[in-house]
Amino acid sequence: MVRIGVDAFGGDNAPEAVVLGAIEAQKAIGAKCRIVLFGDRGSIQRAFESNGYSADDFDIVHTTERIEMADHPAESFRTKRNSSIVLGFDYLVDGKIDGFASAGSTGAMMVGSMIAAKPLPGVLRPTIAISIPTINGGIVTILDIGINVDCKPEVLEQYALIGSIYASRMLGIDNPRVSLLNIGEENGKGNAQVKSAYRLMKDASDKGRYNFVGNIEPSHIFFGDKTDVVVCDGFVGNTVLKLAEGFYAINENCGMMNDFWRGLNYEQTGGTTVLGIGSTVTIGHGKSTPQAVSNMIRSAYRAVSADVVGRLREAFEQ
Amino acid sequence: MVRIGVDAFGGDNAPEAVVLGAIEAQKAIGAKCRIVLFGDRGSIQRAFESNGYSADDFDIVHTTERIEMADHPAESFRTKRNSSIVLGFDYLVDGKIDGFASAGSTGAMMVGSMIAAKPLPGVLRPTIAISIPTINGGIVTILDIGINVDCKPEVLEQYALIGSIYASRMLGIDNPRVSLLNIGEENGKGNAQVKSAYRLMKDASDKGRYNFVGNIEPSHIFFGDKTDVVVCDGFVGNTVLKLAEGFYAINENCGMMNDFWRGLNYEQTGGTTVLGIGSTVTIGHGKSTPQAVSNMIRSAYRAVSADVVGRLREAFEQ
Repeated sequence: MVRIGVDAFGGDNAPEAVVLGAIEAQKAIGAKCRIVLFGDRGSIQRAFESNGYSADDFDIVHTTERIEMADHPAESFRTKRNSSIVLGFDYLVDGKIDGFASAGSTGAMMVGSMIAAKPLPGVLRPTIAISIPTINGGIVTILDIGINVDCKPEVLEQYALIGSIYASRMLGIDNPRVSLLNIGEENGKGNAQVKSAYRLMKDASDKGRYNFVGNIEPSHIFFGDKTDVVVCDGFVGNTVLKLAEGFYAINENCGMMNDFWRGLNYEQTGGTTVLGIGSTVTIGHGKSTPQAVSNMIRSAYRAVSADVVGRLREAFEQ
Repeated sequence: MVRIGVDAFGGDNAPEAVVLGAIEAQKAIGAKCRIVLFGDRGSIQRAFESNGYSADDFDIVHTTERIEMADHPAESFRTKRNSSIVLGFDYLVDGKIDGFASAGSTGAMMVGSMIAAKPLPGVLRPTIAISIPTINGGIVTILDIGINVDCKPEVLEQYALIGSIYASRMLGIDNPRVSLLNIGEENGKGNAQVKSAYRLMKDASDKGRYNFVGNIEPSHIFFGDKTDVVVCDGFVGNTVLKLAEGFYAINENCGMMNDFWRGLNYEQTGGTTVLGIGSTVTIGHGKSTPQAVSNMIRSAYRAVSADVVGRLREAFEQ
């Protein structure tokens, strides 16, 4: 039995959207998973009842304290000891839950990931990846998408390994093609950071650590024919994501929408898993709908089932 | 009389597309401009004749030597002394033409810009900007778009001034709103480079050098409501451009095209002007159509007429 903790205060539409998302996820996963909701018992139970469900199939850890989006992440994580997020990490570290997911404060979730769940031995900088459907029906994973905005080449090199394991375990891609985001395809292109990262990734790939296929140009990320994993630093990765978001909005405003663009709308795609830490932690988008919460919980469940943390731990012990 | 030199060997469809573009530009600008074509006289004349035009309204500087796209830019610029690009720069530096435009080797054009036209006193790194129509009918200028991929904060600060002058003189925008591309809007966001650039830009703006309006998120670049000029380093700027190019291709493949997306197709938009050097140099896209060549020539003409070089020189003398 896998136990996934969910922050019932997390996101703009909590607890309603969280409860509905939890019900949806529970239905989808079935009896193999028990969902533990962290939040105000009364509100949670009312949300179940008003939607015609019983809370009996779920556990509730009661608290009324919450970390607000405006709170300082590190400070609130230290001072709000009874908040749903801090309690979630307490349960996670104590092994009372196997994964923890929240659509609340990304900052506080990252603080918890770093000081409670803690980086795995050997990992320089834990990261966050996002997986987006490509136009050829595949899926591309991009990392880092905004956590580390000043990456040394050594950090980028580690992201190649992390991304490869993630794509293999979470997405079932065999021997994922890992590439480096660059402004030209040829070796020798780019700024000092990526030139150096290229060499490190080439070396590691030659040693069989992963399948490095070289540079990928931004124009080609979403075609899906050349790469499964795209490595970049968080400033560039976040730029890619936010630009895609802007184009999505423009297309939507112009009434030009199709499955590819809908897939880019990460508000709907649920959570992203923090990679390179000692536990499974999944962060959702603040505007999460019930469907997004359900996807976030299922994503956390899948990460636990696939033992992504264990595989990363092994890889960095080598 | 403004004299604009054009590389008749430049671009995939030379000299045909260049000659047709020159004819179009000449018609549009009229007698105020004389176009000087650098290339093989025979081929150029045949291109005129086969399209039913006379070459009499144009000057031709004859040469059969050309810098190929595959040539090493610096080496070929040094050794191919009779190539159309090197001759163009000779004419430019000697004052026989007022501006020089080519859709040929971007690398060789940049080498010429640096070693023949030369950076203006005080300019740390000349740059290339691109201007793109926004969804609200405006136009946004982004710089640098790929020339300097490792920008110090001081270089980014200069781009704010350069971009402001460019938008004001070339696009007629009064007191252009200059912003810094960043992954968050709030002051204090971003990587070390942009945090530092933000402070420099704020200081310069406070001194009245230009109108700095703060950070702009990538999602908002093309909305047009917040900024006229977006400053970023060349790695990030080129990433933005190439990602836009990729999305353009995806939309086109899916049959989802409108004026905004067509405006993003910079193959059609003609040339970009090298900014921060002592002469007017305009670089076109290698796949230039006659229309793109015409736009490139008109862009060079406009830069000369607006005395962009003179205004930049003044600004950096202060």
